[in-house]
Amino acid sequence: MRFEVEKTCSDTRARVGVLNTPHGVVNTPVFVPVGSQATVKTLTPEELKGLGVSMVLANTYHLYLRPGVEIIGKLGGLHRFMAWDGPILTDSGGFQVFSLGHLRSISDEGVLFRSHIDGSEHMFTPEGAIEIQEKLGADIIMALDECAPYGAALDDMRRAMERTHFWAERCRKRHGREDQALFGIVQGGTFPELRGESAAFLTSLDLPGYAIGGLSVGEPKELMYSVIEETVAHLPSEKPRYLMGVGSPEDLLESVARGIDMFDSALPTRLARNGSLFTRFGRRNIRNAAFKDSEGPIDSTCDCYTCRTFSAAYLRHLFKSEELLAYRLATVHNLRFILRLMEEIRRSLLDGTFLDLKEHFLAAYQPTDEPTRIAQKRRWLESQRRKQVSR
Amino acid sequence: MRFEVEKTCSDTRARVGVLNTPHGVVNTPVFVPVGSQATVKTLTPEELKGLGVSMVLANTYHLYLRPGVEIIGKLGGLHRFMAWDGPILTDSGGFQVFSLGHLRSISDEGVLFRSHIDGSEHMFTPEGAIEIQEKLGADIIMALDECAPYGAALDDMRRAMERTHFWAERCRKRHGREDQALFGIVQGGTFPELRGESAAFLTSLDLPGYAIGGLSVGEPKELMYSVIEETVAHLPSEKPRYLMGVGSPEDLLESVARGIDMFDSALPTRLARNGSLFTRFGRRNIRNAAFKDSEGPIDSTCDCYTCRTFSAAYLRHLFKSEELLAYRLATVHNLRFILRLMEEIRRSLLDGTFLDLKEHFLAAYQPTDEPTRIAQKRRWLESQRRKQVSR
Repeated sequence: MRFEVEKTCSDTRARVGVLNTPHGVVNTPVFVPVGSQATVKTLTPEELKGLGVSMVLANTYHLYLRPGVEIIGKLGGLHRFMAWDGPILTDSGGFQVFSLGHLRSISDEGVLFRSHIDGSEHMFTPEGAIEIQEKLGADIIMALDECAPYGAALDDMRRAMERTHFWAERCRKRHGREDQALFGIVQGGTFPELRGESAAFLTSLDLPGYAIGGLSVGEPKELMYSVIEETVAHLPSEKPRYLMGVGSPEDLLESVARGIDMFDSALPTRLARNGSLFTRFGRRNIRNAAFKDSEGPIDSTCDCYTCRTFSAAYLRHLFKSEELLAYRLATVHNLRFILRLMEEIRRSLLDGTFLDLKEHFLAAYQPTDEPTRIAQKRRWLESQRRKQVSR
Repeated sequence: MRFEVEKTCSDTRARVGVLNTPHGVVNTPVFVPVGSQATVKTLTPEELKGLGVSMVLANTYHLYLRPGVEIIGKLGGLHRFMAWDGPILTDSGGFQVFSLGHLRSISDEGVLFRSHIDGSEHMFTPEGAIEIQEKLGADIIMALDECAPYGAALDDMRRAMERTHFWAERCRKRHGREDQALFGIVQGGTFPELRGESAAFLTSLDLPGYAIGGLSVGEPKELMYSVIEETVAHLPSEKPRYLMGVGSPEDLLESVARGIDMFDSALPTRLARNGSLFTRFGRRNIRNAAFKDSEGPIDSTCDCYTCRTFSAAYLRHLFKSEELLAYRLATVHNLRFILRLMEEIRRSLLDGTFLDLKEHFLAAYQPTDEPTRIAQKRRWLESQRRKQVSR
């Protein structure tokens, strides 16, 4: 894998670059949609390409449990299995074990957990996480890390960080496939001194790229931005920097400004399935009665298939009727919105107008208090669990 | 609307024809997929065209209740609302009232029913059903009919038939839009004498087309086929004949052989969402462990996007993981299977090889006892109601 910074912004730490992978070129800053179970929910590989997606993420945890890495290996690897011939990134599985909450115990050896599918017990070790990811065959793979929860005390955060370092060394040692790039993950919570130390240690391993983990997990946005600044200051400028789990328009702009090159997040696709659609003025809930007889598209400035083809009233009707096409059309829109924003960001960096774009966009865009809104939607959906499939 | 029979089979009553509608030409025999709520579940209009769909059906009952005909009218009619510029057929709403079981009472005046959505009370009269369908703006619309249940006594069946005739006259009188063709519906259950009488009466109204209603509702297949024969014998050869609610491969072949030109059914798309996929040898349940590591497509003779792109193992993985893409890829396959069969039927009728096609197809194809299988799937799905949308 080769990474080249093409141009650095004169006003911010933002930069535009090119990431060369065995499955094609990725222009950075890039947003990587999440396809947990070897599918970006509702969409085909062709549609992803049409939206401007250049790389997708798949979750090692999910694929390890189902259908299993042996099956994917036997079927020619992940690219062939999901019929996506572009670059793929797999996570290590660690974060999913922590966040899905079936964690049993963590030791220096690895993470013991229970499957959320059948309750069976499994262990991820640093070496095992690499073996699994080698079988899946992604272009970029991640070292196993320990992500202590937001709010953990300094001592606990330090212990998790040190274990993450120890595991990163073991991952690096175990990793053999030359057609895969192994990224390390900086930990340290919201403690600037730990972040600096973690970035410096991982840099000493001379890995092809570095991720920032353990952010966007409940901390205030300003705190997240300052931790990004602190971390980036300790990372080498010639390697790609990947901020894990971030995907809201405002966070993308703020993080690019602080020197981030890569992002992944399930937010745009999950919001879409909940009927929450991005517009230049903020998110809109398509179920709102205001769209009942709205002839225009959800966002008149959008160039996506959904906005070019259907009225907001039709999209609202599909959501109210719980039609499967609703989730698909909304996903198309939200992903295109984010990918188009990333295209504009890259163009503005080349033009030298990034700061203008950022200021103009953020002046019009009204961010929502995300955790609250998502929790509300979740509860609403829980109360409505009527599945269309059997009708 | 103009209908022309191009050629009649020398061995059977089958014929190949062309139906000219204000929104385009339809080659018959034709299969019309069901888009109850102004969407053929999971698919876009472009995809439908790509599969070879020439006409879609929308349910008056569903659209009347949600989003309401006023909204669809205000948004430019059904074609524009659902972004389908090809021919559309709407049913009268009567059958849905009966089959969704919220029927309150039937009188000569009309049908009183409760909405399955909010329990509100509504009435469909013959005149009302026409007014609603005129606002929706389909190319072919249906007269309101009374469909007595399978097993009803001769007297009850006769009463329902006579009311259907009375209503058909009122519908014809009320109907004003010249860009719509109003079809009548032959009733009479499985009583040959009633079917003959009903066909003769409706023929006397000189409508542009005739449907056969009240079949495929639980009666043995052989009985259904003989009722079709009896009915077709009393219908004019120069008008299109439409068998409502039929869509299994074996029924399509047998009914074409008996002179049917048009079909609609939710079966192929519903089966798809249940994981039951058509192959030349019969239906296969993709969840079956036999497909666990199956590298080939579900049907190696199929030319659909799903079969050209994905392994059966991947499709099984999507179904096991309850991924929304599963229902979409399966729908693409099942619809293409049926539409391709219809293409083969039309070609064979022009070639004079229809009987060969029918015999070869049926020799390989193992029909399933449908009602049992569907009921099993329904129960299985009921027990698994975990909706992916909120994840």
